[in-house]
Amino acid sequence: MTNKLSTQPYKGSRDFYPSDMKIRNFIFDNWKKVCKSYGYEEYDGPFLESFEVYAAKSGEELVNEQLYSFTDRGDRKIAIRPEMTPTLARMIAQKINELPRPIRWFSIANFWRYEKPQRGRGREFFQLNTDIFGVEGREADLEIISLMADLIKSFGAKENMFEIRINNRKLMDNFYKKLGLEVGQIKIVNKAIDKRNKISEEEFEKWLSEDAKLQSKQITNLSDFIENPYPTINSMCDEKYEGALELTELMNLINETNLNDFIRIDVSTIRGLDYYTGTVFEIFDLNPINSRAIGGGGRYDDLIGLFGNEKLTGTGFAIGDITFTDFLQTWGLLPEFNDEIDYFVTLWPSENQQFILKTLEISKKLREKGFKVSTWLEKNTKIDKQLKYADKIGADFTIIVGENELKNDTLLVKNMKEKSQSEIKLEDF
Amino acid sequence: MTNKLSTQPYKGSRDFYPSDMKIRNFIFDNWKKVCKSYGYEEYDGPFLESFEVYAAKSGEELVNEQLYSFTDRGDRKIAIRPEMTPTLARMIAQKINELPRPIRWFSIANFWRYEKPQRGRGREFFQLNTDIFGVEGREADLEIISLMADLIKSFGAKENMFEIRINNRKLMDNFYKKLGLEVGQIKIVNKAIDKRNKISEEEFEKWLSEDAKLQSKQITNLSDFIENPYPTINSMCDEKYEGALELTELMNLINETNLNDFIRIDVSTIRGLDYYTGTVFEIFDLNPINSRAIGGGGRYDDLIGLFGNEKLTGTGFAIGDITFTDFLQTWGLLPEFNDEIDYFVTLWPSENQQFILKTLEISKKLREKGFKVSTWLEKNTKIDKQLKYADKIGADFTIIVGENELKNDTLLVKNMKEKSQSEIKLEDF
Repeated sequence: MTNKLSTQPYKGSRDFYPSDMKIRNFIFDNWKKVCKSYGYEEYDGPFLESFEVYAAKSGEELVNEQLYSFTDRGDRKIAIRPEMTPTLARMIAQKINELPRPIRWFSIANFWRYEKPQRGRGREFFQLNTDIFGVEGREADLEIISLMADLIKSFGAKENMFEIRINNRKLMDNFYKKLGLEVGQIKIVNKAIDKRNKISEEEFEKWLSEDAKLQSKQITNLSDFIENPYPTINSMCDEKYEGALELTELMNLINETNLNDFIRIDVSTIRGLDYYTGTVFEIFDLNPINSRAIGGGGRYDDLIGLFGNEKLTGTGFAIGDITFTDFLQTWGLLPEFNDEIDYFVTLWPSENQQFILKTLEISKKLREKGFKVSTWLEKNTKIDKQLKYADKIGADFTIIVGENELKNDTLLVKNMKEKSQSEIKLEDF
Repeated sequence: MTNKLSTQPYKGSRDFYPSDMKIRNFIFDNWKKVCKSYGYEEYDGPFLESFEVYAAKSGEELVNEQLYSFTDRGDRKIAIRPEMTPTLARMIAQKINELPRPIRWFSIANFWRYEKPQRGRGREFFQLNTDIFGVEGREADLEIISLMADLIKSFGAKENMFEIRINNRKLMDNFYKKLGLEVGQIKIVNKAIDKRNKISEEEFEKWLSEDAKLQSKQITNLSDFIENPYPTINSMCDEKYEGALELTELMNLINETNLNDFIRIDVSTIRGLDYYTGTVFEIFDLNPINSRAIGGGGRYDDLIGLFGNEKLTGTGFAIGDITFTDFLQTWGLLPEFNDEIDYFVTLWPSENQQFILKTLEISKKLREKGFKVSTWLEKNTKIDKQLKYADKIGADFTIIVGENELKNDTLLVKNMKEKSQSEIKLEDF
C-alpha cells in the first residue's frame, strides 16, 4: 500500500525503544550523580530560543549551515537550540544579582543541528552541560576538567581509553600575532586547524597556503608549533604572554593533582564555537574507530555581557550522548540491563468474573508492597501463552489463581528462574 | 543599552532554575515509579517528526492553528511534536512483529503548541504518556484509569481533590445518530460540548442552534442527556448498542475495584483529538481556580493502521506537567526540598600553594566517600565570606584548613546547623 506513512523517524533522529532507554537512563543517571558530587545543581531551559541568541556568538558554521530556525505564527524568528551555552548565559544574566557565586550548574538536554548523519553524529543529540561562573583563576578550569575526568572514570574507563587535550585561545592569538597573521587569516587558520584531524596533511597545507595565504615560512612555524609547542610556550612565558602563563599554570595544577596521566597540551585543539576566550579542551576516545571528540569546553568571559552590562566569567564543558555511548560500547563499559518486572499475575481462562477481580486484587496488593507487577488482562487466554509472555518480559515470579486456588483462597507462586513453584494461603501472602 | 538581548525566554516557554528543576524532578520521578509499578517500560521518540504524522489524525485545531511546522534545509516538511501518540504509533508499527503483547510503555517528553499562554497552559509543556496495546477488553481501560488514579494518589491527593470523568465515543456516535444528526453537525456539536465548561449556557445553545443548526427539540434532548445520561445509557444497553454496553461494563469494573469514589460518567467529556474510538476520560482538579483538565485519554483502535496493514488496539492517557504542578501547589502537596550539599570546603586566603592543594585533596576524598562537596576556588577570599556562601548553598558541614591545621595535619569541621565545630586529624578523617 503506497498511502501508508513511513515508520522511520525523521532523518538523523533516533527512536528510543525501552532497551535503548535503559542505556540512556544509565548514562544520564551516572552523569547527574558525578555532577552532584561536585555540588553542581541541575537546570533546564526551553527547546526554542529567539534566533538572535545564537546569531550573536555561536559561530558562523553553526548559525548559517546547521541551525534549525524558522518564523513562528506571530512572526518571531526563532530557533531550535543547537547548544546550551547561550540559554545558560541568558538565564544567569536574568538573575545575576540573586544567585550566590560561584554558580555551579549542569543540565542534560536535547539539541538539533542540520548535519549529515554519520557515525557519532546525528541531527539530534543529548548533551550534558556543566558550568561554573564567577571564578577567575585556573582552579575553575581545573575543577571542570577534573569533574569531566571523574565522570568518564565513573563508568570504569581507564587512562588508556581516553585523552584530554588542552589549549588556550589567548596563547593562539598571541602566537598568530607573533607569526604576523591578520584577523581574516586567523579565522581561516583556526578553521583549518579545527578540521586537521579529519583531512590529509596536503589538504591542510593547501588550506593554509591557498585560502589563508600563509607564506611557506609561516606554515613551517605553525606546523612546528603544533608538533612540539613547548619551546614556544616556554619562551612566551618568559615574555609574560598571558595565554602561555595561563596554560602553564593550569598544567602545573593538573600535574600536582595527579590528573596528568591522560591530559596533555595540544595546540591544535581550537573548538568551533566563537565565544571561548581562554582555556579550551577536548576529550578524545583513544579507540581509532571513534574518531570524534566525546566532548569539550573552555572558558568564556563575555557571554553574559550579551544580555546585560555586568561581566561574569564562566568555564564549562559539554559531553554528547552519541559519541559517549559509542565510547562505552566500544570499550565494553556498558553493563547488562535486567528486566524490571518482579511479578507477573496471570488471569485464569474462564467466564467467571471472580477471576479477573482476584487477579486485579493480587496485583494491587503486590504494588502496595512496592513490587513491579505486570497483569494479564485478556480473558480466555491459555495459561501456557501467559507463561510464555511472563518469560519474554523477564518476570521473576508468576502468580496463578486457578479453580482450586480460588475455592481454597490460595495462590500458586512460580519462581521463573528456578522453575519451582509453591502454594500459598492468600492471607499469608 | 538598547543593543542588549532580552533575558526573557521565548513567549510561553519556561526556564527551569535549580529550584524549579527540583519540583520537576520530584514529579517526574514519582510518575516513573508508579508507571514501573504497573510494569510499564520507558521509551522516547524524536522532538521533530514529519508533518504528515500529525496531519493524518491529530485534529484540525491542533494541526491548523497550534502546530509548529516548517520546512527543513532539505525541503522536508517537519513539525515539532505537539503530542506523543502519533510518534508512539509509528514506533509500535515499526516493530509490530517483535514486541511481545500486551505492550506497556510510558514516556515523559516536552511538547509545543502555538497557543495563547494563560494559567495552566504554556506553548511548551511536558507530558507523561502511558499506553497499553493489544488488549481488546475494558480491563485495559480500567488498568489505565487505575494507574492514573494511583499516580495522583501517590502525591498524597485525596478523593475530594480530583475527579475522573468517563465517556465513550461510540456511545456519543450512537446517540447522535438516534438524535438524527448529520456528520457535519456532529463535528460542530462535539466541539461545542468540548468547550462547554469554558463558555456560558447561552453561548453553548447559540453554538448548537446557529452553527450546528440543531432544532430546539434536539437541543433539549442533548442537554437532558448531558444532565442525566443514565436513562438513555440504560435503554441503549437494552438495545445492545456497543458504546453503552462498553461504558456500563467499565463502570461495573470500576465499582467492583473500589475506584468509584472519584470516577463518574460525564457525556460532555469528548477529548479534542480525532483518533479516539471508544472509552474517553479526563481528570479534573476540583479546586475551582484550576479549571483545566490535568490529563485525559482513551482508546484508539486505528492509529497503528496509518503506518501498516496490521490493526492493534491501544488505550492510554496523558498528564501535563503545568496543570499537574498547579494541582499539587494549590492543594499543598509539594514537599519542602532540601539543599543537596553535604560538605563545603574552604580555601585559606594565602599565596601558599599548599592550601589550594589541601582543599582539593580533602574535596576529592569526601567525594570518593560518596558525599556532595562544594569547593571554594577563588584565592584570597576572607573565610567569613566563604562561610556566608556555605550558608547560602545550604551546606551541612564546612571544612577549614588554616595555618595551624596545615602545620599539624588536622582540619576544622564546622556543623552548620548546630553551629558547633571540632578539630580532626587528617588521617582519621
